[in-house]
Amino acid sequence: MAEPIDVSDQVASSGEHRRRGGRSANRRGKQTGIAQMPWQVPVNADIPTEPMDGDGMQAIHEGAMRILEDVGIWFLNDEAKAHLRKAGCLVDDDGDRVRMGRDFVMEMVAKAPASFDITPRNPERKITIGGNRMVFGNVSSPPSCADLERGRRPGDRESFRDLVKLSQSFNCIHFMGGYPVEPLDIHPGVRHLDCLHDKLTLTDKVMHAYCLGSERVEDVMEMVRIAGGLSHDEFDAAPRMYTNINSSSPLKHDWPMLDGAMRLARRGQPVIVTPFTLAGAMAPVTIAGAVCQSVAEALAAVALLQFIRPGLPVGYGSFTSNVDMKSGAPAFGTPEYMRATQMSGQMARFYGLPLRASNACVANAPDNQSTWESAFSLWACVSSGVNMVYHAAGWLEGGLCASYEKFVMDCEMLQQVIHYMQPMTVSADDLAIDAITEVGPTGHFFGTEHTQARYETAFYAPFLSDWRNHDAWLDAGADWTPRRATGIWKQMLGEFEPPPMDDAIRDELGAFVERRKREGGAPTDF
Amino acid sequence: MAEPIDVSDQVASSGEHRRRGGRSANRRGKQTGIAQMPWQVPVNADIPTEPMDGDGMQAIHEGAMRILEDVGIWFLNDEAKAHLRKAGCLVDDDGDRVRMGRDFVMEMVAKAPASFDITPRNPERKITIGGNRMVFGNVSSPPSCADLERGRRPGDRESFRDLVKLSQSFNCIHFMGGYPVEPLDIHPGVRHLDCLHDKLTLTDKVMHAYCLGSERVEDVMEMVRIAGGLSHDEFDAAPRMYTNINSSSPLKHDWPMLDGAMRLARRGQPVIVTPFTLAGAMAPVTIAGAVCQSVAEALAAVALLQFIRPGLPVGYGSFTSNVDMKSGAPAFGTPEYMRATQMSGQMARFYGLPLRASNACVANAPDNQSTWESAFSLWACVSSGVNMVYHAAGWLEGGLCASYEKFVMDCEMLQQVIHYMQPMTVSADDLAIDAITEVGPTGHFFGTEHTQARYETAFYAPFLSDWRNHDAWLDAGADWTPRRATGIWKQMLGEFEPPPMDDAIRDELGAFVERRKREGGAPTDF
Repeated sequence: MAEPIDVSDQVASSGEHRRRGGRSANRRGKQTGIAQMPWQVPVNADIPTEPMDGDGMQAIHEGAMRILEDVGIWFLNDEAKAHLRKAGCLVDDDGDRVRMGRDFVMEMVAKAPASFDITPRNPERKITIGGNRMVFGNVSSPPSCADLERGRRPGDRESFRDLVKLSQSFNCIHFMGGYPVEPLDIHPGVRHLDCLHDKLTLTDKVMHAYCLGSERVEDVMEMVRIAGGLSHDEFDAAPRMYTNINSSSPLKHDWPMLDGAMRLARRGQPVIVTPFTLAGAMAPVTIAGAVCQSVAEALAAVALLQFIRPGLPVGYGSFTSNVDMKSGAPAFGTPEYMRATQMSGQMARFYGLPLRASNACVANAPDNQSTWESAFSLWACVSSGVNMVYHAAGWLEGGLCASYEKFVMDCEMLQQVIHYMQPMTVSADDLAIDAITEVGPTGHFFGTEHTQARYETAFYAPFLSDWRNHDAWLDAGADWTPRRATGIWKQMLGEFEPPPMDDAIRDELGAFVERRKREGGAPTDF
Repeated sequence: MAEPIDVSDQVASSGEHRRRGGRSANRRGKQTGIAQMPWQVPVNADIPTEPMDGDGMQAIHEGAMRILEDVGIWFLNDEAKAHLRKAGCLVDDDGDRVRMGRDFVMEMVAKAPASFDITPRNPERKITIGGNRMVFGNVSSPPSCADLERGRRPGDRESFRDLVKLSQSFNCIHFMGGYPVEPLDIHPGVRHLDCLHDKLTLTDKVMHAYCLGSERVEDVMEMVRIAGGLSHDEFDAAPRMYTNINSSSPLKHDWPMLDGAMRLARRGQPVIVTPFTLAGAMAPVTIAGAVCQSVAEALAAVALLQFIRPGLPVGYGSFTSNVDMKSGAPAFGTPEYMRATQMSGQMARFYGLPLRASNACVANAPDNQSTWESAFSLWACVSSGVNMVYHAAGWLEGGLCASYEKFVMDCEMLQQVIHYMQPMTVSADDLAIDAITEVGPTGHFFGTEHTQARYETAFYAPFLSDWRNHDAWLDAGADWTPRRATGIWKQMLGEFEPPPMDDAIRDELGAFVERRKREGGAPTDF
């Protein structure tokens, strides 16, 4: 799986740059850390962009109801079907198709809260999902990773730990998604134990569980409970973690996703339901059709979960984009992705559900394409009123690769988005008529008291954007952005210190992992 | 002025890439052209993002009126002052300060049209400035240019012509801004003659005149008239071109800007008024204060022009951003720039004026930073309801360098923005319930009649984004975006064909340039 080319050549050092090896090496040592914004859960006060009028929304709703009532959704899980039969849905005797009436669906959906908190082991890292809050999580689940120093490679535990550390270190990352890269060097039967142990000890942010078999889900819930120092009752009393399930579009919910979701539901832990509806492939080629199908698939699972656990915190995940009709490959960060996300936002508000979407791209390198695809994805998320942004940092290649440099560059963009969401004030002080009078037609504002009192915190301060003029930039080595990003992640990993954890909890967590490994971990034959 | 490093090294070819020299060379030959979207003047139907409430807007308005009434604006032009004195404004006897009452200002501003057309020599390239139309122009006025093959260099006529050709070739560029790079190898006394001759023969899009002295302005108007085959009366009867003037912030309008603006005004040609209000330098450190000052400076010139020519098409140009408080260097594409543009949009609508802004960045290379700064600038423009986007393609280094690769990458982003603005439909056909029923839980939508009838035009098709998977991208040379952009501009320049021009007009235009050169061109001592 080694690459035939070394990606790092693509931003190869100029002669100027090579002379700076010493300084680059110095960056690895302990320093004062990068200047980043403090942890905060931003409020998106902008009115969302709504490409559909009320008739359009009603049409999507009617279409989704017709799918649920007439076409049906296939639930590949006997327990789920039993619940739905009990709820009065039409469950095929000789198959998995379930048809549910709109009254039932809407009654169930109405039970879901519009907003909920999740509290991880460090209560200061509590996040809110819903309302006009917006939170960001790291890239999840790519099989490969890449950086400009070591090139592209299959995921391993070292890289997994690197990316978990970056997720902890950046204040703009609010929650942990799935594995930031699959550690393929850990046996799948015990991978979840090692990964969650790493995540729970290296970070103190909100945890995620994959729905990949009952044992794994139970193990993760137990580990989150232990790491939080919680009794079983305390764990069950409030959201401590979450899962995300994807429908197997078109129109199917698979066994492990439903099993895991129901396990979390029974313990009051949030479930995000994200249909994977690529227009032209697993969904209609029209964005309206793809969103309609996505809504139907999501509501079907939400109805099941609300029937099992009324009031369960759930979210609607939008993952509607288009494929490249020439190759069938998915495309992200496209105009279609933007509009699909905005339309999904309208429907999420229609149903009163929090909305999840992604910072997605398909570029094969951490290059300009990756940046405009991600910038457009973030534009989509902000303008859609998205509450929970998955894959917010590090995603490359349509999700097949986690890029260290992209992670850092994404965090620079996320910080700007967070700063953008801070409210603008227009007080008499802000208007500064006195300063304008004082400066008159020939002066400069820097020297005024009005400026001096404010300049240190007046503006967004980047950690990666280089605002120097061209000569100063040349003198400093003329580094393009990816090269500068390499310096940042190396510095952050070099300076990383894990968040504190009580020794007794650490021991209990370690003992649990040891015991479960002795017991053989989880089955790998599903 | 040669660079100590070769920028092209930064995206140096991998071994894989170097083996492809032959193909790259082939691209220069005549081919079928890149697949780009057709010419269209897009409609931005999204509701603008408005960070201020009504009280905030009223406060900005009140502040601007106080500046105009009490602080004053300095008009460094005797003719302008004579007009304003005649209009009843308070003009200092021993200076340039003019104070104008709000009733006069608002009466004058109310005369300006909310929207107007400009018709260039090819009437099919007519553009609309105002309403919810949005048009894009090329980068204007940098002294240097750069591409990855030849590096960074002072502007010259060859590069000027290259960038003019790119501006003509890309359908997403609607109007010509100022010179896309300053051709420093042409004497300033005749530069405007050669440049306008090149622009008028190499393009058929809307022209711009710099306000850099009376003779230049008159020459440009005459050349646009000749190129359009218009009588003087026909030229005067409707907008055929435009100028943009910048105030010399704080609070000043300089002689040449006012002189040129008044010359265009007398002939009914549009004037965009763009204060250059960098918060913390030439304007207050607060965004509200900077926008307030910008509004006052703009309205002062608009009032003058409406007094001279009631109903003159004018626009308000927003160029409010922040400086880096560490270095004093301007910053663009920042969160502050986004909010300042949105607030300017609110004020433009408050006064009923079309809005101009820019696709700006400060990055020193066509790297990821340049892309996120531009993507955020475009996000600002779309969400602010900007009508006219200056510097939409090619701007680098805070406007000091025109980048060929950035030009191509910006056009890829502009196309996506144009596609994004196309309306979303939610018809019964779009919802595709029949197709969803037909495909069921196990099929794929590609084979359906619903998809087959739509797939060729269903989605945005990029000319620069590479949507292939990683292996296919590797096989094709693993080019990062800037390298692919190099291939595009070389292809477009190689295939360039100037738009048709009547021989008699071409001769008349050439004769005019010759005569004016014999007469000595324009003075260079202002």
